[in-house]
Amino acid sequence: MKVLRTISEARAAVRAERAQDKTIAFVPTMGALHEGHRSLLRAGRNAGDVLVLSLFVNPMQFGPAEDLAGYPRPLERDLRMAEEEGVDIVFVPPPEEMFRPTAETFVDQKRLPNHLCGLSRPGHFRGVLTVVLKLFHIVAPDVAIFGEKDRQQLLVIRRMVEDLDLGVEIRSHPTVREPSGLARSSRNAYLSKAGRRAAPRLCKALLAGRRLLDRGVKDPAKIRSAMANIFKGEPLAEPDYIAVVDADTLEDLREIGDRAILALAVRVEKARLIDNLLWEAPARKPAARKAPASRGRRKPLS
Amino acid sequence: MKVLRTISEARAAVRAERAQDKTIAFVPTMGALHEGHRSLLRAGRNAGDVLVLSLFVNPMQFGPAEDLAGYPRPLERDLRMAEEEGVDIVFVPPPEEMFRPTAETFVDQKRLPNHLCGLSRPGHFRGVLTVVLKLFHIVAPDVAIFGEKDRQQLLVIRRMVEDLDLGVEIRSHPTVREPSGLARSSRNAYLSKAGRRAAPRLCKALLAGRRLLDRGVKDPAKIRSAMANIFKGEPLAEPDYIAVVDADTLEDLREIGDRAILALAVRVEKARLIDNLLWEAPARKPAARKAPASRGRRKPLS
Repeated sequence: MKVLRTISEARAAVRAERAQDKTIAFVPTMGALHEGHRSLLRAGRNAGDVLVLSLFVNPMQFGPAEDLAGYPRPLERDLRMAEEEGVDIVFVPPPEEMFRPTAETFVDQKRLPNHLCGLSRPGHFRGVLTVVLKLFHIVAPDVAIFGEKDRQQLLVIRRMVEDLDLGVEIRSHPTVREPSGLARSSRNAYLSKAGRRAAPRLCKALLAGRRLLDRGVKDPAKIRSAMANIFKGEPLAEPDYIAVVDADTLEDLREIGDRAILALAVRVEKARLIDNLLWEAPARKPAARKAPASRGRRKPLS
Repeated sequence: MKVLRTISEARAAVRAERAQDKTIAFVPTMGALHEGHRSLLRAGRNAGDVLVLSLFVNPMQFGPAEDLAGYPRPLERDLRMAEEEGVDIVFVPPPEEMFRPTAETFVDQKRLPNHLCGLSRPGHFRGVLTVVLKLFHIVAPDVAIFGEKDRQQLLVIRRMVEDLDLGVEIRSHPTVREPSGLARSSRNAYLSKAGRRAAPRLCKALLAGRRLLDRGVKDPAKIRSAMANIFKGEPLAEPDYIAVVDADTLEDLREIGDRAILALAVRVEKARLIDNLLWEAPARKPAARKAPASRGRRKPLS
């Protein structure tokens, strides 16, 4: 496994593989790898001849009052997992390698970032898009894999790839959860024991929303209210947003059709946690799903 | 010579060449090719094994009150010149192929577009950057060639390539001029005979500015004023801006150092014409120049 720190080394290493007609699969991450990332790496391992992982805590996607400085960076542990999962090339650039002082170019979108996390994190998706585009230029992957936990991120990246004719296939992978239902996230590391007991309410709120959707409730206000109820009496968990939105545009729905995204962001102690669920009306499920609808408690939302 | 209209055809055609280890040179244009483009194509012909030309009047770089509808589109003539100059692949997408109704992603910069033409054409460089990035993704060139007449465009594209790690070499080519000194431009076609007599004043103004610089004048106000004087008594030519700026940042200079750009935009009848000159102090000239300083009247600014 090659561990490379400069753009030119990474570009050359990938080009050498491509010159041998190998296909490139890419998993871009901010490191602090957990079981969710492991599943992305396994999907990546199957998606191309060469598996490239990037570990880069992107300063451009953090707001000034956010957790950039404290974001975990357990490099040795990350490299161990990468090795275990058969990664071929790890790209770990230092911040000044990726963002030079002269840099002033950015990528952004007009609509998708004006919803959900984009509202409480202005500039966040500009930072995500810009760094992902840079990484795509450096790695030139055939396939890149992103987790469904960051569904707005997945949507903005898919849109960028289409709008800018990038010719990269974007695959998504279901959220991996703890037995409690809590979505795996690097930011779970910020939680105290009490926080860990409160955090599974995000998943419970999604399940409460889904129950109403499955019963045919069409009014988003009722669904949001049922989701909000889950946080009553839990002072450690403070919702930032609870939303029922269009699965393509992320606009607030006035009435539920046959697809919707339930999404929420909740502050639990020092962590801002997010989770979401893509709901599809039963008639559409067989075509849209590849796996059985439920595989028991470990993946209640898959 | 292949003439291709869809993104997927163009991408496939270039990939087939690249699969044979050929290098790709690219000249992106808005068509209405003139002798300036011809010199770019000749440079391109020498720069790679395969020469790709794009002809696309990019709606995104025109303001609402600008000349998008009237911009000349002499396709047959353009294809003839392409053939003459040994172009291998011409990409001529219709507008709806390049900009789908769902598109919302754009590229922009924080500083360079806030000068010169960017001030009178808000959104222009966002349009240029976005379409050039899309074309780079489709064509994946090793080298791309741009004219120095659009010097701000050249600078914003170079900056984008560096900032976004595009790995494309950008080469520039000197402005080609008519015997009168008028820079070749597709928009010269808008001029009446009287307009054609007025338009060489742009070049004369640059030469007047250069004379002062060569004599050691350090005050940009004096240079601007000498350039502005050239337009006195010519009611057909109305300057939009006359500027003396830093050769890298395009910021207004307070005092001339050893490099400066003289730039101007002038409305002559229905045409908004631009021209510029990169001046370097004599001590730096030998290193920076490859050709003799002057080749007579045809290229007084080369």
